[in-house]
Amino acid sequence: MSHNTFGHLFRITTWGESHGPALGVVIDGCPSGIALSEADIQPWLDRRRPGTSRHVTPRNEADQVRILSGVFEDDRTGGPVTTGAPISMIIENTDAHSKDYDAIRDLWRPGHADYTYDAKYGLRDYRGGGRSSARETAARVAAGAVARKMLGDSITIRGALVQIGDQAIDRGNWRWEDTLDNPFFSPDAAIVEQWETRLDDLRRAGSSTGAIVELHVSGLPAGLGAPVYGKLDADMAGAMMSIPAVKGVEIGSGFASAAMRGEDAADEMRMGENGPVFLTNHNGGVLGGISTGQDLVIRFAVKPTSSIRIERRTLDRDFEETTISTRGRHDPCVGIRAVPVGEAMAALVIADHWLRHAGQSAF
Amino acid sequence: MSHNTFGHLFRITTWGESHGPALGVVIDGCPSGIALSEADIQPWLDRRRPGTSRHVTPRNEADQVRILSGVFEDDRTGGPVTTGAPISMIIENTDAHSKDYDAIRDLWRPGHADYTYDAKYGLRDYRGGGRSSARETAARVAAGAVARKMLGDSITIRGALVQIGDQAIDRGNWRWEDTLDNPFFSPDAAIVEQWETRLDDLRRAGSSTGAIVELHVSGLPAGLGAPVYGKLDADMAGAMMSIPAVKGVEIGSGFASAAMRGEDAADEMRMGENGPVFLTNHNGGVLGGISTGQDLVIRFAVKPTSSIRIERRTLDRDFEETTISTRGRHDPCVGIRAVPVGEAMAALVIADHWLRHAGQSAF
Amino acid sequence: MSHNTFGHLFRITTWGESHGPALGVVIDGCPSGIALSEADIQPWLDRRRPGTSRHVTPRNEADQVRILSGVFEDDRTGGPVTTGAPISMIIENTDAHSKDYDAIRDLWRPGHADYTYDAKYGLRDYRGGGRSSARETAARVAAGAVARKMLGDSITIRGALVQIGDQAIDRGNWRWEDTLDNPFFSPDAAIVEQWETRLDDLRRAGSSTGAIVELHVSGLPAGLGAPVYGKLDADMAGAMMSIPAVKGVEIGSGFASAAMRGEDAADEMRMGENGPVFLTNHNGGVLGGISTGQDLVIRFAVKPTSSIRIERRTLDRDFEETTISTRGRHDPCVGIRAVPVGEAMAALVIADHWLRHAGQSAF
Amino acid sequence: MSHNTFGHLFRITTWGESHGPALGVVIDGCPSGIALSEADIQPWLDRRRPGTSRHVTPRNEADQVRILSGVFEDDRTGGPVTTGAPISMIIENTDAHSKDYDAIRDLWRPGHADYTYDAKYGLRDYRGGGRSSARETAARVAAGAVARKMLGDSITIRGALVQIGDQAIDRGNWRWEDTLDNPFFSPDAAIVEQWETRLDDLRRAGSSTGAIVELHVSGLPAGLGAPVYGKLDADMAGAMMSIPAVKGVEIGSGFASAAMRGEDAADEMRMGENGPVFLTNHNGGVLGGISTGQDLVIRFAVKPTSSIRIERRTLDRDFEETTISTRGRHDPCVGIRAVPVGEAMAALVIADHWLRHAGQSAF
Repeated sequence: MSHNTFGHLFRITTWGESHGPALGVVIDGCPSGIALSEADIQPWLDRRRPGTSRHVTPRNEADQVRILSGVFEDDRTGGPVTTGAPISMIIENTDAHSKDYDAIRDLWRPGHADYTYDAKYGLRDYRGGGRSSARETAARVAAGAVARKMLGDSITIRGALVQIGDQAIDRGNWRWEDTLDNPFFSPDAAIVEQWETRLDDLRRAGSSTGAIVELHVSGLPAGLGAPVYGKLDADMAGAMMSIPAVKGVEIGSGFASAAMRGEDAADEMRMGENGPVFLTNHNGGVLGGISTGQDLVIRFAVKPTSSIRIERRTLDRDFEETTISTRGRHDPCVGIRAVPVGEAMAALVIADHWLRHAGQSAF
Repeated sequence: MSHNTFGHLFRITTWGESHGPALGVVIDGCPSGIALSEADIQPWLDRRRPGTSRHVTPRNEADQVRILSGVFEDDRTGGPVTTGAPISMIIENTDAHSKDYDAIRDLWRPGHADYTYDAKYGLRDYRGGGRSSARETAARVAAGAVARKMLGDSITIRGALVQIGDQAIDRGNWRWEDTLDNPFFSPDAAIVEQWETRLDDLRRAGSSTGAIVELHVSGLPAGLGAPVYGKLDADMAGAMMSIPAVKGVEIGSGFASAAMRGEDAADEMRMGENGPVFLTNHNGGVLGGISTGQDLVIRFAVKPTSSIRIERRTLDRDFEETTISTRGRHDPCVGIRAVPVGEAMAALVIADHWLRHAGQSAF
Repeated sequence: MSHNTFGHLFRITTWGESHGPALGVVIDGCPSGIALSEADIQPWLDRRRPGTSRHVTPRNEADQVRILSGVFEDDRTGGPVTTGAPISMIIENTDAHSKDYDAIRDLWRPGHADYTYDAKYGLRDYRGGGRSSARETAARVAAGAVARKMLGDSITIRGALVQIGDQAIDRGNWRWEDTLDNPFFSPDAAIVEQWETRLDDLRRAGSSTGAIVELHVSGLPAGLGAPVYGKLDADMAGAMMSIPAVKGVEIGSGFASAAMRGEDAADEMRMGENGPVFLTNHNGGVLGGISTGQDLVIRFAVKPTSSIRIERRTLDRDFEETTISTRGRHDPCVGIRAVPVGEAMAALVIADHWLRHAGQSAF
Repeated sequence: MSHNTFGHLFRITTWGESHGPALGVVIDGCPSGIALSEADIQPWLDRRRPGTSRHVTPRNEADQVRILSGVFEDDRTGGPVTTGAPISMIIENTDAHSKDYDAIRDLWRPGHADYTYDAKYGLRDYRGGGRSSARETAARVAAGAVARKMLGDSITIRGALVQIGDQAIDRGNWRWEDTLDNPFFSPDAAIVEQWETRLDDLRRAGSSTGAIVELHVSGLPAGLGAPVYGKLDADMAGAMMSIPAVKGVEIGSGFASAAMRGEDAADEMRMGENGPVFLTNHNGGVLGGISTGQDLVIRFAVKPTSSIRIERRTLDRDFEETTISTRGRHDPCVGIRAVPVGEAMAALVIADHWLRHAGQSAF
């Protein structure tokens, strides 16, 4: 994990700015012989795509992916498969309104990376946040789709939005299939109306809200993970915290563990029909950094969108005090589109650990 | 970051088991010319050392560190300094009671890595948890001390315990100097008596408790961090989650951000006497993965010690159902000794990013 | 260095096959603020381009490079500069004749990677060698051009062909400017006619020849290199050996050192006008893996092109014995176009070590 | 591969100086369940040990290795086996005569890393060369022994000295068993007497000589290697060039390939009893960076020992011109002891690629 590369054996390098000609990703280390075409990737990009409901940015990007390398359609194989060579994918930017950003050219938007990029690099591509834009996450989703394809159907990686503002779902209503039927990826159909009202109010007010995303990875065998610094949960934490606007990550009972007693927190074991079972899952599917075979459960907190119409105080690049009110097209709750991004990062971590485990278990 | 190596340019590799002859760390990439001797490291190890109060494990380890390489006392320099070669440090295990562990040889302790190590490796060093023991963190603290020495006095890295069980400190009482005067590293002197009572109760009951640690890094310049996958906060999250028993990490307002509105969460900017200042620090000193120059604020949750006397249900290695009650010497709240470990990991991340930033800014 | 990524801080990832739609490279870690446009890169690609003389492959590729990210033309800077974000470059394949390769679809060409790719990956993109094609080196040259731009004019990286077949140049005739005036990058103008005759003969005979390339890096300061496994010469050796068809690498006096005595091989030192000088350069500018400040001198051997018309014995994918005579468009001496590729790899190693040195010298 | 770490999945980090208290290595990534004790390692160290004949340095080091971690003797396994945790090994320095080095404290020895270490680090541990000493290679040999143990008996890694000065062996006399019976690891018994005479002469003259080492790796399957920058031959080249005093590396026909024609250089294929066979091995067992299943053949050139009694011109640290005549205990031909070191590096590269191949072939 370094700069723009993520992963060790299943390894992605992403590139591209919000308002450049295109963005993309190169995947290195993907095994050969895996059936793969654009059709395997596009549906996951469509889940993350802007413009799908009034609750996300109206920027109109088709987010059409093209595979430029690493896949070969051999007449002997009956369809395109990976060759073991790097898989390069590209997504063109088609609806970039760079003009919109002249107003912020010389301002540091509070809550954005404007000031820090200037501090680090001495300059910045201010158009839509440049490299710091959440648009970069499209490349993660494309790569995550390849990771899913490699992992196959026995491993399921699902995400859900479990809180918007201070309105949390009722866990008793949890139905995974409901996440596919509402614009919030909510597993609780009953809360959808409240959330719609809230987001409509926020949008009208020119404000925004934070949210919490929850991910479940099912079907993992016990044994994935690389103690002590490449622990499965440590890598998941780094992966999720690398998503724009994420401010917290927890595994299993997470922060609630602090208030627990040992006898409640330790997941007891019994024999089930197919081997060991755990009676609870406070550890979220990881012990000592290695998967237990239970569901991996990860939650992360997303801060409210920093681009808001409500006027805030800030500085310009000449250190003059001023104010800013961000117009243009923005998600009032970036947490929503963070759901498919979180899923993709989880898929990438699992794919990488799968190969790493194979690597360390070769004898 | 891979298996037992952490960091990229300031890079540590730790080794050793709880009940082996010794444990240690090799630091690679430390610049030359930094004054360094055992006396710079020992005080930090003493902070983490077991046996310092009745609230931590009574295992009696001197944790005496020896530097075996990478430092040279040249008569021209007037004292030992780093040479740029790898710094190897070793700490001998002197109070290992391996006999204590015969009882758990064939059992999987709930909440421990016993089952997962067996699943991954096909065998495990069961004595005191072997490699998965928190004893490994002594090596992190030794390495962290070298990182601090390199960073110098202008950067301060401090940790505090802010919650034990459900008893959180009163932030109005926060005084850093108080963390040095009580066995809990509590910044709120007023809560110490309650915590003592609670821990005495838990110890008598053979139970344990979780806790929350908070770290502040002060004195950082703006500009440290490596977007987009080597973000300063992403690396901090991975670092903290790699500490045994940690189940959650947050930066700045963390999970509370989810309930905030955009106008409250974005830290506004004004000019101060020495440059830009932020009116709040909800982002915890990081924007877009790069330091802002404010205090870096990190919190992490530590689950209750899994080794408890209270009987729990589990399996043995033959998959037979049984129960376990762990005797021996254990911390009733591993969160306490996690404070110096968290500080050390923060120091390591900062040291690494300092060098990485120098590397990317060389032209 | 891993799979398709080369370098640590100045880090490239290349992708693309000989007959896919395009090939490219992503550079990560390039400092910000460096003036960079396609015009800085294209001349280096033109040096390596096929079709420039009758002595190289007639495949007609424009090798036009496009920069897709990492560069920003700010009206404040007066021209495009790097931003510190990844630089993605793409080169389209325009003259791929995939049909030509049907004949080799099921054969393993001797001397090529056909058999080994099948053995490793279970399949291969047989069109023009797929990923194993020397066409991949165009991406290296593009990346090397960016490395040169970063290093600036004070560091000169030059290559020359010093031997074709058994015909070595006369070192007494060495003039760097002559390398620009003949199709062989020969520094000895007197040998050009002999080489032309030889290559014409080989081409008519359907054969090919090996060659030796020599590189000089001038203007380096003393102090670059990372002992003991990231030595400057070790990284150069790995870099050169990663170029297709390279079978040997040497530094300074190289293999001739074996026959030398200690008093002849050690480069003596004296004071020059601008500091220490060495009276000879048998060590090729490196001692203990660190640059001395002398010219870095590297030589590498390139085997004869494996694609020849002369019939050779081989197997097909069904393990049936057969023969092959390769038609199509091939370089009779791949060593010629290896000159700009070797220069590019040298530039990449130097750029990486420059940043690594800055990283380790930050205190 | 970075600074003092070598390898990716089978990964070693070495530390220690010539005249420090000890040197050592940490191996990370070794699979679990491999029987391993000091007795598996010591014989390989004994092969490289100084003081074994009059032709190597008389420094008297027992080079006794101790394993400090990563191995566990479980009563269920009947002997110590690896656990998958890092294997830390230490070798104490017992015959360091630091006093001998006062004379060179302020001088830069020609051909040594003295000047370059001072240039890079601003200071150096001058005692016996400090970190740049060939004594560091003991740690490589210890690690290589573990790599061999992991690879098992089906893979054989053997080295031989094939040239001292300008006296090359007669390849017609090659017998591997002879390498065990003379102090030069010569596979040609007939040349031993000549070499003894030559070395006696050189020692009396206070001079030294270069040499060439050849390595053969037998029993490899086809398919190991990671194109295009982690090619098996590229990694071997980097590995060998990282050995002190090595100035050139070649694979298969190496530099002789330059003078060959395509029809002679391409190794033709035929079917043998157990699968494909190659009629020659000019490519040295690698095509496209991937093993062919033939013997891997590597040669490397070692320069003459730089520490000689014959007076040479040099500078001191105040840039004053002076001369030096190195006394003390030195190998007149470091190439001899480079044989077991080269074997160890080859074993490490193979072990790493074995695990990497398993990692990329997991699906």
